[in-house]
Amino acid sequence: MSLFPLLPEANSAVLVLDQTRLPHSEAQLRLATLEEVAVAIETMQIRGAPLIGATAAFGLALAMNRDASDTGLAHAYARLARTRPTAVNLHWALDRMRNVLQGQAPSARKNAAWQEACAIREADIAANHAIGRYGAALIEAIAARRPGPIQVMTHCNAGILATCGWGTALAPVYVAHAASLPVEVWASETRPRNQGLLTAWELAHEGVPRRVLVDNAAAWLMQQRRVDLVIVGADRIAANGDTANKIGTWLKALAAKACGIPFYVAAPTSTVDLKCPEGGAIQIEERSADEVRDVWGLDETGALAHLRQTSADCVNPAFDVTPSELISGIITERGIFAPGAIGEAFA
Amino acid sequence: MSLFPLLPEANSAVLVLDQTRLPHSEAQLRLATLEEVAVAIETMQIRGAPLIGATAAFGLALAMNRDASDTGLAHAYARLARTRPTAVNLHWALDRMRNVLQGQAPSARKNAAWQEACAIREADIAANHAIGRYGAALIEAIAARRPGPIQVMTHCNAGILATCGWGTALAPVYVAHAASLPVEVWASETRPRNQGLLTAWELAHEGVPRRVLVDNAAAWLMQQRRVDLVIVGADRIAANGDTANKIGTWLKALAAKACGIPFYVAAPTSTVDLKCPEGGAIQIEERSADEVRDVWGLDETGALAHLRQTSADCVNPAFDVTPSELISGIITERGIFAPGAIGEAFA
Repeated sequence: MSLFPLLPEANSAVLVLDQTRLPHSEAQLRLATLEEVAVAIETMQIRGAPLIGATAAFGLALAMNRDASDTGLAHAYARLARTRPTAVNLHWALDRMRNVLQGQAPSARKNAAWQEACAIREADIAANHAIGRYGAALIEAIAARRPGPIQVMTHCNAGILATCGWGTALAPVYVAHAASLPVEVWASETRPRNQGLLTAWELAHEGVPRRVLVDNAAAWLMQQRRVDLVIVGADRIAANGDTANKIGTWLKALAAKACGIPFYVAAPTSTVDLKCPEGGAIQIEERSADEVRDVWGLDETGALAHLRQTSADCVNPAFDVTPSELISGIITERGIFAPGAIGEAFA
Repeated sequence: MSLFPLLPEANSAVLVLDQTRLPHSEAQLRLATLEEVAVAIETMQIRGAPLIGATAAFGLALAMNRDASDTGLAHAYARLARTRPTAVNLHWALDRMRNVLQGQAPSARKNAAWQEACAIREADIAANHAIGRYGAALIEAIAARRPGPIQVMTHCNAGILATCGWGTALAPVYVAHAASLPVEVWASETRPRNQGLLTAWELAHEGVPRRVLVDNAAAWLMQQRRVDLVIVGADRIAANGDTANKIGTWLKALAAKACGIPFYVAAPTSTVDLKCPEGGAIQIEERSADEVRDVWGLDETGALAHLRQTSADCVNPAFDVTPSELISGIITERGIFAPGAIGEAFA
């Protein structure tokens, strides 16, 4: 892995890949202040639930460089907490940071905050590895039953670009690929923001065979028996196993159920929100209609450009909730759980 | 209605709207030869199952202007029949034309062909009206139960632009709107070719309130109770009621079932293929990956332009098949039928 979507730079900044310019160009951003981090999360230059959590932790640490008072801490917490409403990892990381820092004198907070943010990042890398190993066993089991490539469908991007390590949904694919299992990926475009193209890009970067489908084609591909397994990420998992993830995930789960194909969610346990009893309680972010109206790509000169494809009013919910009963299992760094058992397992 | 996607021009040509340029610009094409008609269908300048059928009939009539021999007839039939594989209306219209022309001397075929093509067009207009009246009763029944706008979701474009008259799936909406019922439409984008934007455009043209969603947002909108009814068109209906329609239709049907929302198919009876026992026997067209890779819209100068959004390999099936059991009813010009009864009704 030579892609690093988040690199700490000795107490003073983090380097991130600007994901609004990917897969078209690899632009690095240096975020050195609380506000720069908050805006990068809001505008989705940084995205993916685990990566948002870790980046927000560094945002809080950078804020401590300027104002480590109780007021400064409260302000930084509040600013970062309101950047994105749906992914719980953001709040999990901010709570973890605040718990550590509240026990410290303001003078000690600068170093303690940086250390804790680094620990969050390291823990995410380790969780990715563990998720990868547990999930790869599912791929291995299919490979043991028949010859030919194992075809995994995913939605959005829950890979390297969404985490600090190998990803969540894609970690099993990378582990299987590294073990020379013949694994191939179907990357669903994921309108309106096309994070599926990020998935296609990072898989190509890592040498994993992949093809792109429009989101509409998911059920057809499954019916053609060209999908062995669906693995997606998660932004918030309720205590009953209902899972919020990128808009369109629920449709893939319905299609998988109709076609008898296993449908797994992969996420670190920091994505489980025990305070949330069921999916109906999860706040769904609605984003700007311009994300639907405008499309991005490279023009004939190879420059990144956008076009307006419609002037109509648009609705733009960013997430939906897949009911627990459509999920075959939740792959975490602690093992694979039945979705109905996730509340009890982590109570 | 002032939009006419197909206008015959006295035995010598048909005028059509170039739908590859809509909704961005209204360019009219004059098709005067068999080959021009065939290419317009292949490139989707003309699209929509009923409109393809009627346009192909005129293509055959134009061919008779040049060569009305048996060989000329067989050649024209074969050329048009291979333009698109999935929509049955194409073959239905060509068979109807050939049956009439085979009974005529070559010298009489030119006029007979033009007359028959005009009759096919007139019959489609009449079928649209009847479908509209039957379907509007469904909207009226909901309006009678509660106040507020009735929200209809559709997929792709099965409106004026897909037929010779008021459309199939949209005909009930136009009839309800004309009767001053408060009807609103959710137009699903319909990647990769965005025919949902054609739907949004023609509805705005006719003064019907409408909003656009990305295809991924369908289940979420239904769950929010912001959809009362789903109505889609059809490209081929098998004898058991399984229905081929634009890729992604099946996902909407699954979502409607999960959310307890009625899901109707609207189509003229020429879309029913009694020779096809069930959906698995329907040939699904796969189109160029460039339809997925390239996106179209207006640039800052207002010119129609395209961008390449990915260089990845893509799969691009144009249709999927919605199983009969997910369909609440099939709205035809002869009434609304249970999908399981369609074979018997038209045997």
